[in-house]
Amino acid sequence: MQDPVSFFVNADKYIRSALQEDITSEDVTTNSIMRKATMGACELIAKQDGVICGLKVFERVFTMLDHKVEISFNFEDGDEVHSGDLMARLKGDIRILLQAERTALNYLQRMSGIATYTREAVSLLEGTSITLLDTRKTTPNMRIFEKYAVKTGGGCNHRFNLSDGVLLKDNHIGAAGGVAKAIKMAKEYASPVRKIEVEVENLDMVKEAVEAGADIIMLDNMSIKEMDEGISFINGRCKIEISGNVTKEKIEQIRHLKVDYISSGALTHSAPILDLSLKNMRQV
Amino acid sequence: MQDPVSFFVNADKYIRSALQEDITSEDVTTNSIMRKATMGACELIAKQDGVICGLKVFERVFTMLDHKVEISFNFEDGDEVHSGDLMARLKGDIRILLQAERTALNYLQRMSGIATYTREAVSLLEGTSITLLDTRKTTPNMRIFEKYAVKTGGGCNHRFNLSDGVLLKDNHIGAAGGVAKAIKMAKEYASPVRKIEVEVENLDMVKEAVEAGADIIMLDNMSIKEMDEGISFINGRCKIEISGNVTKEKIEQIRHLKVDYISSGALTHSAPILDLSLKNMRQV
Amino acid sequence: MQDPVSFFVNADKYIRSALQEDITSEDVTTNSIMRKATMGACELIAKQDGVICGLKVFERVFTMLDHKVEISFNFEDGDEVHSGDLMARLKGDIRILLQAERTALNYLQRMSGIATYTREAVSLLEGTSITLLDTRKTTPNMRIFEKYAVKTGGGCNHRFNLSDGVLLKDNHIGAAGGVAKAIKMAKEYASPVRKIEVEVENLDMVKEAVEAGADIIMLDNMSIKEMDEGISFINGRCKIEISGNVTKEKIEQIRHLKVDYISSGALTHSAPILDLSLKNMRQV
Amino acid sequence: MQDPVSFFVNADKYIRSALQEDITSEDVTTNSIMRKATMGACELIAKQDGVICGLKVFERVFTMLDHKVEISFNFEDGDEVHSGDLMARLKGDIRILLQAERTALNYLQRMSGIATYTREAVSLLEGTSITLLDTRKTTPNMRIFEKYAVKTGGGCNHRFNLSDGVLLKDNHIGAAGGVAKAIKMAKEYASPVRKIEVEVENLDMVKEAVEAGADIIMLDNMSIKEMDEGISFINGRCKIEISGNVTKEKIEQIRHLKVDYISSGALTHSAPILDLSLKNMRQV
Amino acid sequence: MQDPVSFFVNADKYIRSALQEDITSEDVTTNSIMRKATMGACELIAKQDGVICGLKVFERVFTMLDHKVEISFNFEDGDEVHSGDLMARLKGDIRILLQAERTALNYLQRMSGIATYTREAVSLLEGTSITLLDTRKTTPNMRIFEKYAVKTGGGCNHRFNLSDGVLLKDNHIGAAGGVAKAIKMAKEYASPVRKIEVEVENLDMVKEAVEAGADIIMLDNMSIKEMDEGISFINGRCKIEISGNVTKEKIEQIRHLKVDYISSGALTHSAPILDLSLKNMRQV
Amino acid sequence: MQDPVSFFVNADKYIRSALQEDITSEDVTTNSIMRKATMGACELIAKQDGVICGLKVFERVFTMLDHKVEISFNFEDGDEVHSGDLMARLKGDIRILLQAERTALNYLQRMSGIATYTREAVSLLEGTSITLLDTRKTTPNMRIFEKYAVKTGGGCNHRFNLSDGVLLKDNHIGAAGGVAKAIKMAKEYASPVRKIEVEVENLDMVKEAVEAGADIIMLDNMSIKEMDEGISFINGRCKIEISGNVTKEKIEQIRHLKVDYISSGALTHSAPILDLSLKNMRQV
Repeated sequence: MQDPVSFFVNADKYIRSALQEDITSEDVTTNSIMRKATMGACELIAKQDGVICGLKVFERVFTMLDHKVEISFNFEDGDEVHSGDLMARLKGDIRILLQAERTALNYLQRMSGIATYTREAVSLLEGTSITLLDTRKTTPNMRIFEKYAVKTGGGCNHRFNLSDGVLLKDNHIGAAGGVAKAIKMAKEYASPVRKIEVEVENLDMVKEAVEAGADIIMLDNMSIKEMDEGISFINGRCKIEISGNVTKEKIEQIRHLKVDYISSGALTHSAPILDLSLKNMRQV
Repeated sequence: MQDPVSFFVNADKYIRSALQEDITSEDVTTNSIMRKATMGACELIAKQDGVICGLKVFERVFTMLDHKVEISFNFEDGDEVHSGDLMARLKGDIRILLQAERTALNYLQRMSGIATYTREAVSLLEGTSITLLDTRKTTPNMRIFEKYAVKTGGGCNHRFNLSDGVLLKDNHIGAAGGVAKAIKMAKEYASPVRKIEVEVENLDMVKEAVEAGADIIMLDNMSIKEMDEGISFINGRCKIEISGNVTKEKIEQIRHLKVDYISSGALTHSAPILDLSLKNMRQV
Repeated sequence: MQDPVSFFVNADKYIRSALQEDITSEDVTTNSIMRKATMGACELIAKQDGVICGLKVFERVFTMLDHKVEISFNFEDGDEVHSGDLMARLKGDIRILLQAERTALNYLQRMSGIATYTREAVSLLEGTSITLLDTRKTTPNMRIFEKYAVKTGGGCNHRFNLSDGVLLKDNHIGAAGGVAKAIKMAKEYASPVRKIEVEVENLDMVKEAVEAGADIIMLDNMSIKEMDEGISFINGRCKIEISGNVTKEKIEQIRHLKVDYISSGALTHSAPILDLSLKNMRQV
Repeated sequence: MQDPVSFFVNADKYIRSALQEDITSEDVTTNSIMRKATMGACELIAKQDGVICGLKVFERVFTMLDHKVEISFNFEDGDEVHSGDLMARLKGDIRILLQAERTALNYLQRMSGIATYTREAVSLLEGTSITLLDTRKTTPNMRIFEKYAVKTGGGCNHRFNLSDGVLLKDNHIGAAGGVAKAIKMAKEYASPVRKIEVEVENLDMVKEAVEAGADIIMLDNMSIKEMDEGISFINGRCKIEISGNVTKEKIEQIRHLKVDYISSGALTHSAPILDLSLKNMRQV
Repeated sequence: MQDPVSFFVNADKYIRSALQEDITSEDVTTNSIMRKATMGACELIAKQDGVICGLKVFERVFTMLDHKVEISFNFEDGDEVHSGDLMARLKGDIRILLQAERTALNYLQRMSGIATYTREAVSLLEGTSITLLDTRKTTPNMRIFEKYAVKTGGGCNHRFNLSDGVLLKDNHIGAAGGVAKAIKMAKEYASPVRKIEVEVENLDMVKEAVEAGADIIMLDNMSIKEMDEGISFINGRCKIEISGNVTKEKIEQIRHLKVDYISSGALTHSAPILDLSLKNMRQV
Repeated sequence: MQDPVSFFVNADKYIRSALQEDITSEDVTTNSIMRKATMGACELIAKQDGVICGLKVFERVFTMLDHKVEISFNFEDGDEVHSGDLMARLKGDIRILLQAERTALNYLQRMSGIATYTREAVSLLEGTSITLLDTRKTTPNMRIFEKYAVKTGGGCNHRFNLSDGVLLKDNHIGAAGGVAKAIKMAKEYASPVRKIEVEVENLDMVKEAVEAGADIIMLDNMSIKEMDEGISFINGRCKIEISGNVTKEKIEQIRHLKVDYISSGALTHSAPILDLSLKNMRQV
């Protein structure tokens, strides 16, 4: 989500829509006090410590309105910032700076909040070979931004959406009539370039899934003891993911397990924003 | 944001876009295991205590895909729910239930999280005549949903966006060359049906604003003492709003002040989600 | 409606749509006789006296198709032009000049017609402190252009649309069960940053509206005598607007009244166009 | 523009856009005083004499928001109405009636204004075999509605847009290097299913056009004498159209000429609206 | 479909949509191996003999993503290419070259296939005055590209779509109650700038069509003998088109007939692609 | 691509766009001869032998315009039809039947052509365990329809687009600096739920790919002998795909190889349409 094509085919439509959400006819306040183009400058300042993420999105909000706005950043996505840091200098038509400000910050603050939160969670897995994954529990119309923030924070992405991955959950298994049947149906229907992942809740399901040839087994809301048994049974025959209300406390309890992935919805649905501000607007 | 016209002209486009974000070609998993329409049912269960908000949005996600999905709710927006409560029964084509589930929950969980958080903040103002307001610090493309959640939680909305209200901030005042000039320019430019609000940072600005005929004065990041002086000076000649990192602790400190409004960005940018779940999917 | 952001978030979509209305596959005539890019020039000529309005929209129609088209204007919006005046010189790919011509003129002629008509109506209020307002009786998909033309002609805008202002009309009052109740419900529901305007038809309603705290009272289709009584009763406690088939003759009759605003739908629904023409196309 | 497919592929997008122009978040006033669906009724009343046009568009504005709104019309498009006539009864959710009212009337009033104006102009040609045509001088994003109104008033449509007809004007002829060359190029380039029309300004051009095989010759801004000579020369070898500031007075002067068509931009750019009103809203 | 306006109002929307069909979130492969902009170059090579068509569309796919991509072509639309020919050199950000490649080739291969096929069919009519026409049997959302390819191959276009031409087919005639009635109704309803074409199946219908004043008569699926009789009867009173499963073999059989047009759906629905390839991608 | 959600989120937009391509203002012919809704019926007849595919798309074109159109099918997707077969009966407003006819047939004919062609290719692999795959060489804006047709014909789909699968081609490998490096970079960047496929051209690359842990190796344009060696080397350590101008003749030559997949672009870019027709339109 950093390359120009991703912006063109995907991110831009959300950014444009966000600007139109905030300005439906005109910015009455700005147009009241500034009736002609006037060059101005301001600074982006950190007001909290954290991991910055979304600088290209921040920039795109301004340049979508006026490609002549210039922003020079002192940081890159993934860098740590500290309260008071001068993160960037902006220069351009003051009317543009004023009208893009809120939308640009709304993106940057939220993405940085997620990256900050993810970095903390990832650090709890240091020393293990476990990869931290996100989920589809993202804010509507924010997925491409939030999944990128998880990567920036050091996590990995699970599937992007329902169209690009197979994950058989309890409801699918029930509808199919069992783990083995569900896996068989998915192997028939889905493109062979896809891995088949299946969510299980007990040891019997684990066994059935391994035998049916699952590529990844997700142990969902199982006890430590049950997970231990499942991991032993699987014994490297497929990848293992753990999920279910994964909090920092829970990570501490399960980090010793020999699994490949832990997935956490909280990365995208519970991270508070990182406080940032545009300051010192002036004519230049 | 509850009436059918708001959905038609505004909310639907975001909901449609959110569904398309989650399904770009087809839901491979569901289509693997369920190749024909099959009637099913499931329940919406609360997994946390809180204030529910967004039931019509939740419903709309399903009915946008298939108007024959039926949902019977046991609660209304604004009701308190407790962990374990059976909130609703859903019935319809299982394929629809499975494919709308995540998007519907992503909306409902977030809106309920905001309503829950707002209700707590509002309760801290009980016994005063102060109204709690939101801000434009909303998640991009979520404003209509998040502002509605603030109302559901007992707060009031500030302006919806840059087009429907005049709020002269420090940057506007700087650009205009002072408080009085800025107010004068806004009165000339803006429609007379609009109120003029101005953000001030010290007592001199308060005085200038009152004399220039502001309708609302926002005391931004001022000390309690400064605010007290400002309030005395204003003496009912216009409405007063307090803003600036309004936390619960801060509300405790300022609730005794004789002001009309307190605004808080945290209502929409810091509220954690309320945990909810779709359970017990089965053929019927 | 003059700044680049208004074009980006609002006006451009209508202009693009208007071009697509006029060219659905290709311009068969132009492509027949001009199969390669060829530099050309032409002039914009006034064929009637009036107030010009919409020059940036006119320009945008051309530059949206080809940013290299150059237009040098001899006038600004709000200037008076006289029949025969050379208003602008255009230079660019002749194919672009030919294909944008009609759409550009359709906008400019209509906007100039409204500005011309408004200026005449405003002049009838000279010497009073009454402000002339427009209404929502605009041509569908032309509101941002037509409201701007009213301002250019010297009028002021009433609310832009149903989302950014409260105006309680007879039907709302009926549904609410009376003037006082309607005002009370609006004050509860609407954001406190909004003024509450109420339309009344007789003196009893005036009284009820003042007591309920209306910010603006609209005297609708009342006799001069009734209006006089209403104005006396209000006595400065709120703003007063007069409406109802406001023609030039009617303005003459009511201009002596001590009111704040007169609103007229005719500004946008009855103004004839101002005749303008693109002339003297040639290769250069 | 009366059949359901035209609405689906073309008219609906403009109507939807017009509704979104008038309601960007919600109708604050209606939602203030009516928070639940409530059945209501009202009437459409003529306040002026004229030809009614656009009843299906009027209806579509309501039913697009809520397909359950019921409208029973006492008139059909093309009928004459008189001031005071009860034109239709409407029944449905009062919130829908209130929110669609203005947009529906804005369409109906404008279309009826054009139909009324056209009928008058057509009546001036009674007793001749001349057909009255419209032009592309329509309001942006209103063409399908305005051209339909011309037909309803008894006129005929010229080409719909630049893609579906060939009309070589002075600028095209100049670029091509003469009438004969332009016609030759158009015959080569354009589909053979199209007629070739050419605009001429003097007798030499008429001769060249006839010899080059034009299907229709438009005599533009020529004197009566010149037109007489042109018509004699053409002598039935192709169709003849007269254009150029065609007013009612001018129609009187030229109605004796043996031509096929007269085209008038005024039909769509100068017709005032027909005054109509929605009255007597009440709960039922 | 070569001029910039056609791209702006029509072709671009399909090209954008095609890119979004191929990239819904990001190009995972390219972003894996190339995380920064890197200048590269490659060549477009013909792998089959044929007529090239669509070079501007090919180019537009790249420049829509990045206007800095440079392509120098050695051929123009309509030129013959031979297997192995170096058709173009491309230079730009390698990420763009990789991500646009498939979509650009999918357009160019298909358009060139149609141009190649059309040129062969046209050559079979050499020495006659018959024009080869296409039909509306095009691939959905490809019409503007496919009709242009027919022209590039030397054919002519029939009407573009249902809105810009009148063609009364058997079903319309049945519904109208006969050939004469159908033509009469079309003359009444359609703009006088349109020609009236009618499809007939036997000699009686031919006679009726001529007498009713059809501009073009299409002899559909008639025997050679019937066509001969029809042509004799018409005797130049209107244009004649032949249609119905027109293959190369059939062209041989009917090329001696004195008709104006032969139309063939196969041009757009049966032409195989022309094989082309992007080769030799490298950093520069 | 058969379930209602796929239509809603993906297929419908293409179908709507295809209808708008064919009707930009109105269907002049149909509206000429049928000015009111009139019930009619017609039949869908096969004019060639083949495999039918796209019946729901065919139906959707009609019901999108008017949900009351009724179609009763005698066949299902995947069935074989023979010339003359009565495939379906249609009933509805004749105006809808006439206006949707061409677009509906354009989809159905093309999809059936691909299914027919694929079935023949698949039959050449009978008796082997090789799966026939498609490619991204689809017609722009037709992918979801063409990939579904491949499945209906008995083939399987490769990845849907660039966002849902990793396929490292020669250009990616060159940019990354070798097979092993490219695979390593993809494993780092891409979600772990994705398989990594790599295209190789010789035995050295095969070895490198196996050792770097590719999930699928595509042998591209290699000789039979080279492929034999590669397959022996791989020896079951990953899946194997063969690609490169796969024609029926080539399938005969390579069907004995012990590989998992053969992919063929010709399925979607070279299949001729299947001839079908709507007949016998009549009032009922």
